[in-house]
Amino acid sequence: MEGITVEQAVELILEHTPVICETEEAGLLETPGRILAEDMKAAFDNPPFDRSPIDGYACRAEDVAGASKENPVRLKVTEEIDAGQYSVRKVKPGEAVRIMTGAAIPQGCDCCIRQEDTDYGEETVEIYRPEKKRGNYCFAGEDFKKGTVLLEKGTRLGYVEAAILAGMGADRVKVYRKPRAVLLTSGDEVVEPGRELTQGKIYNSNLTLLTARMMDFGVCPVYTVTVGDDAAVMADQLQKAAKDADVIITTGGVSVGKKDIMHESLRMIGAERIFWRVQMKPGMPTLFSVYQGVPIVSLSGNPFGVAVTMELLIRPLLQKMMQDDTLGLVRVKGIMADTFEKSARGRRFIRAIWENGVFHLPDGLHSNGILSSMVGCNCLIDRKSGLGPLQTGCEAEAILL
Amino acid sequence: MEGITVEQAVELILEHTPVICETEEAGLLETPGRILAEDMKAAFDNPPFDRSPIDGYACRAEDVAGASKENPVRLKVTEEIDAGQYSVRKVKPGEAVRIMTGAAIPQGCDCCIRQEDTDYGEETVEIYRPEKKRGNYCFAGEDFKKGTVLLEKGTRLGYVEAAILAGMGADRVKVYRKPRAVLLTSGDEVVEPGRELTQGKIYNSNLTLLTARMMDFGVCPVYTVTVGDDAAVMADQLQKAAKDADVIITTGGVSVGKKDIMHESLRMIGAERIFWRVQMKPGMPTLFSVYQGVPIVSLSGNPFGVAVTMELLIRPLLQKMMQDDTLGLVRVKGIMADTFEKSARGRRFIRAIWENGVFHLPDGLHSNGILSSMVGCNCLIDRKSGLGPLQTGCEAEAILL
Repeated sequence: MEGITVEQAVELILEHTPVICETEEAGLLETPGRILAEDMKAAFDNPPFDRSPIDGYACRAEDVAGASKENPVRLKVTEEIDAGQYSVRKVKPGEAVRIMTGAAIPQGCDCCIRQEDTDYGEETVEIYRPEKKRGNYCFAGEDFKKGTVLLEKGTRLGYVEAAILAGMGADRVKVYRKPRAVLLTSGDEVVEPGRELTQGKIYNSNLTLLTARMMDFGVCPVYTVTVGDDAAVMADQLQKAAKDADVIITTGGVSVGKKDIMHESLRMIGAERIFWRVQMKPGMPTLFSVYQGVPIVSLSGNPFGVAVTMELLIRPLLQKMMQDDTLGLVRVKGIMADTFEKSARGRRFIRAIWENGVFHLPDGLHSNGILSSMVGCNCLIDRKSGLGPLQTGCEAEAILL
Repeated sequence: MEGITVEQAVELILEHTPVICETEEAGLLETPGRILAEDMKAAFDNPPFDRSPIDGYACRAEDVAGASKENPVRLKVTEEIDAGQYSVRKVKPGEAVRIMTGAAIPQGCDCCIRQEDTDYGEETVEIYRPEKKRGNYCFAGEDFKKGTVLLEKGTRLGYVEAAILAGMGADRVKVYRKPRAVLLTSGDEVVEPGRELTQGKIYNSNLTLLTARMMDFGVCPVYTVTVGDDAAVMADQLQKAAKDADVIITTGGVSVGKKDIMHESLRMIGAERIFWRVQMKPGMPTLFSVYQGVPIVSLSGNPFGVAVTMELLIRPLLQKMMQDDTLGLVRVKGIMADTFEKSARGRRFIRAIWENGVFHLPDGLHSNGILSSMVGCNCLIDRKSGLGPLQTGCEAEAILL
């Protein structure tokens, strides 16, 4: 099989992939999926005050030491403090305050008594049981302390982190900006969905495949164009895209035929070819170039090839560019429940369903041009080169989609 | 522990949860994450024509039966067919056409010869090896046949399905509409992030927690309101929300204190109480009602309680309402790497990190009011009631976040 290994290809791609260090501000609800670009340090203790975890009475443990149902302790109720309220009056011996869950415990008190353990008194209250010092008592700073770094730069934010940011009072945070990706699909034979399919044409599924998968990875392409098999037009598009994009992905035109325009287009703009051809099926004719610092990944036009190279080559690129390790490929092992007949010499990636440690093959053809049999598949079996057919019962390894 | 079991609570919630059957049209790139509301049947064979998988020459296998490098067969090249082109001229014995990958194989031909196995001739071509009938030949309908249901009603669409729809020529499809959710958080003590934090107040993290998690589940709340501890105002909001919403979620005010307004608000509007209190920690005082057919889930105000009930009670509700089984809870088993000390009688859900079959507990407090220690956690250990502390080395079960 011609070309470099998949691992070499990834290494070369990463070598030419810049990390995006520019930042932008994101509102709280825009943060999930983003990478934090600054340490987030607490500006105050949280909770900001000692607070009651119950509905009841705040008082001094000393005063209620001997309390029981038979011998209740009677305290004078000086005020009521609800959640959201705050009292500056210090509670003295023999006194209590009515207090609600989440309310600030006033000075002088060192415990709270559950209302079920009292007579619910308003002017005075009878306490039916003792409480230890700091019993039913939440300390200021119990959640986090002023100055503590709660979320570190580089953290991938999710719903919990967004809520923590909210709890810190932050309504906007600095995150790394997302990559600007441009997708260029090519081919005289493709027609966009929704238009009429004329003789000799097929519908363009690659553009949707690439765009939707990029969106799974958190990247919404800045624009997408479908170009005919014309090297000069493609060259123009590449030049235009390179002005604005962090990464350019093209499909089609990378093989050896007369219509394989990508080689010519890239020569025309003077892009540096880093590699062409990778030892993998599908996706063998993948071509990687750099133009004005922008990585250009050129995939073959076969839809299944696009799906496979997206995972194996573009996902690692985005992982580095976005500093998002959740994009890292996850490998799993399992036993073949079916036999994969095709026995080419080279390395092959095979669509499959991985369930409870077992690999099932989908019905339908495995050809590179066929996508329909990929429905329901959740992995790509990595059949290393030199192996024969994958027999039922043998062990295999796959990357999860 | 008071209340019904989590399982009973889920059952009651589902009993009162309608499935959304109304549909809407979605453009291709809006389909990922949506549920298909119609069978998608192929309107044509794909590929729509027999096509060449290679760059080379299409001809008749019979004509090249004896071909070799030493004794090449010479054929007359009658035309060139590129991808996207189509010829109606039938190829006769002794003839060949130059053909490119993806181009329609013309009538009369039954195989294609790779250009590497020819002299690349233009007027005539020398063929250096034989090819079997249907060799290098892709049949029309190989991907899918006209009339085949490629995607069934009820399928959850992803990037592959979107690409298959594109390949079918569909630019819009019918999907079920998303739930309209209204979130109402309550509490005199909460201040929205970005505002000044005054004495006795805390920032509202629940609204962000709920909204961001709903968005993970594919639901963008139609609106959210934060209400003070005023039963009449909350009642108004509930009535207003019920006009428009499929589901209402509230936080706070469900306990037994004077400020626990939800009971009163729901009474005021005449909502039917289905249950109050669930045997779980956190989230015990969860209250579930139905008003004008709209399920209202009222959660306690503790952020960790909100996070837990969101998974255990609201996620199943959304799963049913949206017919989206990817929202189903996934349970995993593992061994405790740390000891969880607290030993209450009741069932408890404990934030943890599950990795390689082992549960690790995060640093920091596990209190219900504390969210910061949830960073990095990917599961909730389900410590069933009646068990003591979870010791290092013992087996535990968890639901994945």
